[in-house]
Amino acid sequence: YDNPPEYPTQQAQKLTAGERETKLKPLLDDNWTMVDGRDAMKKTFLFKDFNEAWGWMSCVALRGEKIDHHPEWFNVYNKVEVTWSTHDCGGLSAKDIVMAKFCDDTSK
Amino acid sequence: YDNPPEYPTQQAQKLTAGERETKLKPLLDDNWTMVDGRDAMKKTFLFKDFNEAWGWMSCVALRGEKIDHHPEWFNVYNKVEVTWSTHDCGGLSAKDIVMAKFCDDTSK
Amino acid sequence: YDNPPEYPTQQAQKLTAGERETKLKPLLDDNWTMVDGRDAMKKTFLFKDFNEAWGWMSCVALRGEKIDHHPEWFNVYNKVEVTWSTHDCGGLSAKDIVMAKFCDDTSK
Amino acid sequence: YDNPPEYPTQQAQKLTAGERETKLKPLLDDNWTMVDGRDAMKKTFLFKDFNEAWGWMSCVALRGEKIDHHPEWFNVYNKVEVTWSTHDCGGLSAKDIVMAKFCDDTSK
Repeated sequence: YDNPPEYPTQQAQKLTAGERETKLKPLLDDNWTMVDGRDAMKKTFLFKDFNEAWGWMSCVALRGEKIDHHPEWFNVYNKVEVTWSTHDCGGLSAKDIVMAKFCDDTSK
Repeated sequence: YDNPPEYPTQQAQKLTAGERETKLKPLLDDNWTMVDGRDAMKKTFLFKDFNEAWGWMSCVALRGEKIDHHPEWFNVYNKVEVTWSTHDCGGLSAKDIVMAKFCDDTSK
Repeated sequence: YDNPPEYPTQQAQKLTAGERETKLKPLLDDNWTMVDGRDAMKKTFLFKDFNEAWGWMSCVALRGEKIDHHPEWFNVYNKVEVTWSTHDCGGLSAKDIVMAKFCDDTSK
Repeated sequence: YDNPPEYPTQQAQKLTAGERETKLKPLLDDNWTMVDGRDAMKKTFLFKDFNEAWGWMSCVALRGEKIDHHPEWFNVYNKVEVTWSTHDCGGLSAKDIVMAKFCDDTSK
């Protein structure tokens, strides 16, 4: 190929009611919360210091870029507030589940 | 030394009226704006894509860690909103001037 | 999807003689050199300091992760020596051309 | 201050025989090895994948920049070969001990 390749996305679709029960609920039980007025979820991650926070953010940045799905996030020192939602479908999709799990797995 | 060294800070002090005229005003003339209700300044930086935004954030992260002065920043895709203020003195200090200039210089 | 997605690769193939003339030669004319005894190319990039080098490396890391193609690279302070080759096919492939161009474009 | 501040270094000094016994030896017992023909030590770190390697490298980069002491390192995918030595004194100094320990502590 000559051009930077694109991750091949089928059009993202909002989670179904069933998926929200099986895939989203476990995250909401693990400190992810719905954002007021949006179909989006957020969580605050705390680290020892900025160094540790930044190392983690670097991992999330790489994984997000890999699957072409990027966070909304706010950082100050050791704190990172992450929000996931999918622009294409205007709400939570399977990609958000994947990235939220990645955040949880790599922050421990 | 055995311990991770600390950048030796004299206690940070809020910018004087004179410093605000000579050092802060040029930044406020260059799209930095005061934050409502705080002695803090913010600016939004736009990049081509997440890749370019992240490369820049990495430079700011390194420089901030070097002088032990970290941003409050929000990122989504190609946009980075940066706020500078100094916790120790509860307002803008010389460090914020240094970091704001660094942001400007490296974002061009 | 439930699993971290994979970038869908057709099996990488070594550059043909024609591709080496049209795509590789321009890079070899721009300071990329063949590695002794391997079908691989390398180039040394110099930056102002470590900060600038690391910002650039962060961009290359993100792009490489995006297309699942990672550099061999050596860094000390402001210097980064980058080698591209494709493990799957044991030599230079189209991905190496893409990444070498990316390195050139983003280092200027 | 108006200029980017410098971490204030007393001139780095090579480790004494006593320091080599008390500070270097424990590292050499933990898989750091002396580099042939140089007063330098190296170690290879292996991670799950590039993502994890890069997150760790980001932490080392930040810490190194903080104390103005940068690694010589080679990375390919999940492998990072790190060499520490101090340019100023032409050999191992206290800073190398600090950074080697940091590498060990953060790679676990």
